[in-house]
Amino acid sequence: MSSRATFPVSWQLARLPSPAATPAPADWIPATVPGAVQLDWARVQSLPDLHFGQNVRAYNGLEDFWWLYRAAIPAVKRAADERVFLAGDGLDYHAEFRAGDRVLLEHTGVCTPFELDVTGLAPGTPLEILIHPAPKREGAPPDRSQAAHVTKPVVSYGWDWHPRLIPLGLCHDTRFEKRPAAHIRHIDFRYVLADDFSSARITVAVETSMPSGITWRLREPGGRVVLESSESVATLREPQLWWTHDHGEPALYTLEVSLDAPGADAATRRVGFRRVRLVMHEGAWSHPAGFPKSRSLPPVTVELNGRRIFARGTNFVCPDIFHGRVDAATYEPLLALARDAHFNLLRCWGGTATPKESFFEQCDELGLLVWQEFPLACNAYPDDDAYLDGLDRESRAIIRRVRQHPCLALWCGGNELFNSWSRMDDQSLALRLLNRNCLDLDPLTPFIPTAPLEGMGHGDYRFLDPDGRDIFQIFRSAACTAYSEFGCPGLAPVEYLKTFIPAEELWPPRPCTSWETHHAFGAWSSDNALWINTRASEHYFGESTSLEQHVARGEWLQSEGVKSVFEEARRQSPRCSMALNWCFNEPWPTAANNSIVNYPARPKPAYYAARAACRPTLASARIPKFQWERGECFSAEIWVLNDSPVAQPGGELIVALECDGLVIELLRWRIPDLPPQQTVVGPSVRIKLQNTQDGEFTLMLRVTGHEDWDSSYRLSLRPAMDEIASVGARALNH
Amino acid sequence: MSSRATFPVSWQLARLPSPAATPAPADWIPATVPGAVQLDWARVQSLPDLHFGQNVRAYNGLEDFWWLYRAAIPAVKRAADERVFLAGDGLDYHAEFRAGDRVLLEHTGVCTPFELDVTGLAPGTPLEILIHPAPKREGAPPDRSQAAHVTKPVVSYGWDWHPRLIPLGLCHDTRFEKRPAAHIRHIDFRYVLADDFSSARITVAVETSMPSGITWRLREPGGRVVLESSESVATLREPQLWWTHDHGEPALYTLEVSLDAPGADAATRRVGFRRVRLVMHEGAWSHPAGFPKSRSLPPVTVELNGRRIFARGTNFVCPDIFHGRVDAATYEPLLALARDAHFNLLRCWGGTATPKESFFEQCDELGLLVWQEFPLACNAYPDDDAYLDGLDRESRAIIRRVRQHPCLALWCGGNELFNSWSRMDDQSLALRLLNRNCLDLDPLTPFIPTAPLEGMGHGDYRFLDPDGRDIFQIFRSAACTAYSEFGCPGLAPVEYLKTFIPAEELWPPRPCTSWETHHAFGAWSSDNALWINTRASEHYFGESTSLEQHVARGEWLQSEGVKSVFEEARRQSPRCSMALNWCFNEPWPTAANNSIVNYPARPKPAYYAARAACRPTLASARIPKFQWERGECFSAEIWVLNDSPVAQPGGELIVALECDGLVIELLRWRIPDLPPQQTVVGPSVRIKLQNTQDGEFTLMLRVTGHEDWDSSYRLSLRPAMDEIASVGARALNH
Repeated sequence: MSSRATFPVSWQLARLPSPAATPAPADWIPATVPGAVQLDWARVQSLPDLHFGQNVRAYNGLEDFWWLYRAAIPAVKRAADERVFLAGDGLDYHAEFRAGDRVLLEHTGVCTPFELDVTGLAPGTPLEILIHPAPKREGAPPDRSQAAHVTKPVVSYGWDWHPRLIPLGLCHDTRFEKRPAAHIRHIDFRYVLADDFSSARITVAVETSMPSGITWRLREPGGRVVLESSESVATLREPQLWWTHDHGEPALYTLEVSLDAPGADAATRRVGFRRVRLVMHEGAWSHPAGFPKSRSLPPVTVELNGRRIFARGTNFVCPDIFHGRVDAATYEPLLALARDAHFNLLRCWGGTATPKESFFEQCDELGLLVWQEFPLACNAYPDDDAYLDGLDRESRAIIRRVRQHPCLALWCGGNELFNSWSRMDDQSLALRLLNRNCLDLDPLTPFIPTAPLEGMGHGDYRFLDPDGRDIFQIFRSAACTAYSEFGCPGLAPVEYLKTFIPAEELWPPRPCTSWETHHAFGAWSSDNALWINTRASEHYFGESTSLEQHVARGEWLQSEGVKSVFEEARRQSPRCSMALNWCFNEPWPTAANNSIVNYPARPKPAYYAARAACRPTLASARIPKFQWERGECFSAEIWVLNDSPVAQPGGELIVALECDGLVIELLRWRIPDLPPQQTVVGPSVRIKLQNTQDGEFTLMLRVTGHEDWDSSYRLSLRPAMDEIASVGARALNH
Repeated sequence: MSSRATFPVSWQLARLPSPAATPAPADWIPATVPGAVQLDWARVQSLPDLHFGQNVRAYNGLEDFWWLYRAAIPAVKRAADERVFLAGDGLDYHAEFRAGDRVLLEHTGVCTPFELDVTGLAPGTPLEILIHPAPKREGAPPDRSQAAHVTKPVVSYGWDWHPRLIPLGLCHDTRFEKRPAAHIRHIDFRYVLADDFSSARITVAVETSMPSGITWRLREPGGRVVLESSESVATLREPQLWWTHDHGEPALYTLEVSLDAPGADAATRRVGFRRVRLVMHEGAWSHPAGFPKSRSLPPVTVELNGRRIFARGTNFVCPDIFHGRVDAATYEPLLALARDAHFNLLRCWGGTATPKESFFEQCDELGLLVWQEFPLACNAYPDDDAYLDGLDRESRAIIRRVRQHPCLALWCGGNELFNSWSRMDDQSLALRLLNRNCLDLDPLTPFIPTAPLEGMGHGDYRFLDPDGRDIFQIFRSAACTAYSEFGCPGLAPVEYLKTFIPAEELWPPRPCTSWETHHAFGAWSSDNALWINTRASEHYFGESTSLEQHVARGEWLQSEGVKSVFEEARRQSPRCSMALNWCFNEPWPTAANNSIVNYPARPKPAYYAARAACRPTLASARIPKFQWERGECFSAEIWVLNDSPVAQPGGELIVALECDGLVIELLRWRIPDLPPQQTVVGPSVRIKLQNTQDGEFTLMLRVTGHEDWDSSYRLSLRPAMDEIASVGARALNH
């Protein structure tokens, strides 16, 4: 087996005013790798808790220094032909590796691996890594446009849910490693499934440090070896397919590769077999009609192993400000929540770094598809050679790594690049280059240049739009093929707010306080209180009188809002085949955000609402609007949404309205037996709303024999201008 | 100078029932190269004139045979190190080159060059080229779908203006050529213009048969040498830019390349400097508005040397059924007509073969931009390796050749591939491959995967749509960014019809006669008489009583129709920046067609109408509809359309209406001075139409001092149901 071994070293760090500066002995501080220079600096300088109040300001400007890491070459007991390497999966962002006066390597990129053969350096020799200041495009204002010429994750330059804090440093495990002379440099596992999935033609390509015989074995999920070969190509009969958790089992095989020399290198990896495509939705070809005729909408329906699926999911963003302190344990609770929410697809948004390997490994295991974007978002990335060369390297590294994972659903060039706030277009060379690299390196995985494309929709991100339409109304009148971003804001829970908003600032929330630092005020748009949602809250309920009340109102709006869009998108199937709320998580504690999970992995009430709306099968109501007047005739269409791949018997659906503690039954309806993946349109209910005390009412859908399909909707009721006391209730089939 | 020399040979041809068959001596017939096997066969068999009546049927099935060319290796007097090659620019479609029992070369593709070193073959040795039967996809019906797996031009399989006749054979000059040992294999002239066009950084890459010193010289249009270099890279200061004829001079330089050995190879080529981009139109970023938000429309405005231009042009199709008999003389009259029509851009539609070099050379000289498509049209070209490999080869050959020409404006994957009749989409590997190849080989020329894209429009192709809207109305309510295909049908002139429709069939035209063979009946759609346009003609004028009358009516409709769309598209600038009528020419005599030039180069009346509408500057009227009722209030908006790059003084515009020989002046308007490329909105005219005799009236726009801006519109007038005799005339400014 492998004689690889890793030798731990002590890393030190010094902050330099200029690249040529020599640190004094006292300048060196201990460094944690992986990590970030800011974290090491904060530890030694005892900077206050980054997450609290407005402390993040104390980190301003650290990214404009030069930072020098160093470690002594470890003493490695090795055979004559063994080599020692310094290797890492990338670093943030640009660095020179030096020993004495010699520059051994220059490296750029968070996701481009590096390795340096240090066998020739005597043990104890200081190896230095000089990290350059964060790139900032000359002349650009201090916002995301400073990163419009680099592949460095742009979110760090400031976003509506991410403070401006630009990490630098060794953000990946960076290891001194002894390797046999003949060692594995890269394993490439590829396959083509037969059209009927009855076999997989497998290619195992192993890059080695020197010519070497190779043996590889494939173990099926149960552990039995099903293939063993010394050839690069072999055929597996009747592969168990990898499915998302809701459509089957995410079957994973184990690939074992070893070089044929005694004591030579070996490696193991989990692999899976799936075919994923983006296909046209049913009916797509009949539009546009008439002349002059444009094109039909681009395909966005995910077809997994020949089955069209509705993609219910979310936008996954960086789980921490510092990529360097993200590891498997960071992802675990978040991905467990995503899986439990019945999500089957996560969009890894282009503003952040491509997740680490453990993210994809966990998605492979959990049966979660991943839409992976390249590191471009909301900027006009230029056609110039310097940028394109960097993007070429970084994107190839990302593709080579991530294409191995069965969870990969599609590649995307980046976020919202064909919109006015980015101003890239179909001719942008960066996107043509990404299309090319994906074709060259991973031709069987779909590629889209950006989202949204024609037919897809991003937004709305508000419960109430400036025209006075609520989120129910906005999406009911939309007809997108995919809602790849939508959401509405919600506040963090009170007890959580108290952990990062100073007590004296807690009530009332105001701009220019920690509330603004934590994004409640001053995010996008002219509405300064956009995310704290003052306008919608006051529109429906009047001014809040306490923090508890304002938070509860915000949670109510966010929960019903997010739920309504997921369900409406599913009702619009098959034209629509995707709903991904913006956004799932957040990189630090936000006071108000479209997220449904607070940092690091605390579900907000809206999380549970999304989870309810994403059950494979559920009773659902299409409700015209959120707020009603007493005396108004309330109506709702009853549906059964069903994405389940297996047929299911129906049941009796009871629709009732609860108000002031009273329950009024509106309808009993016999749900027919459900064929796989077929949504059923039911009757409508109507009732004239009566006088109430509570200012709210709840529409309840209860399914006898399928309690797991039950749904309920909590709606607002306000006095009519002309108060009407009459009560009426009837149900209509249509 | 070059010691290249070409040795003419006599080609012979034999038709074979099977690939292994051996022709008897009597089976050999003389062959013309370049040409087509069908033409040689017809000559010997005295097949009747292909163009007349239904004679084309006599050619049915010839494409299903194997055809064997042969020529004796010529006796070549050569120096010891000189080589003899058989070379050609491609052949139609798949062939094996043999000498005796040996297969020397296999070749596929109309546009992929081949060369074969035959130096070792003794003079007199028969060199054979076995042409395989035309590819026909198994199981496909006898239509274009038979060619959905090959790069062979698909139009030959039958179209609404092209008979089903599938050429085979040596369609390019195929020459035995003596070359020096060191000879030039390919010259690649590339350049990057400085942002301010003050210099061009030139790269001359010469592929040679063996390592060799190279000298190149560049002569400016006047003949003076402005650069001479032995390096591959050099900088030209203040290059004269290549412009379309309407925006400047199509300046061409001459590149001379020679190898440095005495008596070595040399070559000369015309080159030019231009920067072409597709850019977003003014206002594009403000759409779409609201949420959920899709993307902004893709860019389609041509920017030439930093100047946005309105692309007025046409769809250029194959000028002959047989690519093999197309040469410079075929293109010359057609391109002269295109230039004289004030066109500045030709779209070379993907259904036909990429034109020969002489086409691009002439476009370079005439200042005509070319939109070049790859050979894909109206089919679902598959993702399979065999097709993709062939497309990869053929497309690379096309790009390597055509990218050299300054006339090249953009690459396009093919025709209407994202529409229901094709069913390819953004994920189709063929289109991703073409994007890649264009990026790799010609990154600075725009690429679009197909037309129409979102925002662009194809059609209408009728004067009157099934909803009763005429072409004026259809386009007035459209809002496309580019009308890359539009048109309406017109008949061929009577005297021309008589040359290919038998006298006894001439009147009345009927289906299942030569009229149908020549496309008047039975083209697309459920309207059997679509192109002969019976429905529109009878709708406006009632039944025709003679051929002359029917043709004249059709010519009237086509002329006013084509003119109205060109002018309307220009009025819609800057949102719209392109109008290309479908189509310019035709490959054989059609009885009725959207073409405006009959085969081979006979302008129809609609050609002159298009020419009038494409003048850089003209007075124009936006007229609500074609046919009016007596007593109705006629109105028209007056505009001055101006694409001229230079400012021009205005003039006095007189608008008048002519009816029954009487001229009624409606308006005099002082046109303001015209800034470059700025269209001016003028007043509207209105008049109540009075009783007339002629059934028509003409709106005349006369510009004092700019008679070349005059326009007139011939419109139909029919009696009102309730005949009104009152007359009124007034003109309103607004």
